Amino acid sequence: MSAEKVPNMILVYDIVDDRKRAKIADACLDYGLDRIQFSAFVGWLTPSKQQELMVKIKRILGKSPGNVQLVPICADDWNRRKVIDQKERV
Amino acid sequence: MSAEKVPNMILVYDIVDDRKRAKIADACLDYGLDRIQFSAFVGWLTPSKQQELMVKIKRILGKSPGNVQLVPICADDWNRRKVIDQKERV
Repeated sequence: MSAEKVPNMILVYDIVDDRKRAKIADACLDYGLDRIQFSAFVGWLTPSKQQELMVKIKRILGKSPGNVQLVPICADDWNRRKVIDQKERV
Repeated sequence: MSAEKVPNMILVYDIVDDRKRAKIADACLDYGLDRIQFSAFVGWLTPSKQQELMVKIKRILGKSPGNVQLVPICADDWNRRKVIDQKERV
């Protein structure tokens, strides 16, 4: 993700198949998204790139069970998000 | 969630501790959110209720590691979301 750009979308998924889930994560990273959680990514993509990514994900998923949601997020909403982030103590 | 209301927020989490994750899921359901994935909920909450829920989640989490993100979503963005939903074939 370009450092200047506020994310304009969040993508979250539930994928049963480990191998397909890993390939879908790779696709998200290829599109420049940032991984904020194990199964959640954010980033800035044009609507056509968002569509393209969902088509790619659909192709990777094939007929396997899964739920993928891509939600556009405007800058106002992004700036009003609330985050709890606590790391594992080592 | 009230049937008339379009969701105005998404909440996603990565929680390591199984018991705490289950309690946080229960808190989300108590606030009327709908579970769209194992670790993702949507619903309609006022900003003060969103804040209240995050305080509750923080309290349940304690000092355990975890990442929780609550992102407001305006109706326009909600309506432009893209969903892939494929069930397990039985």
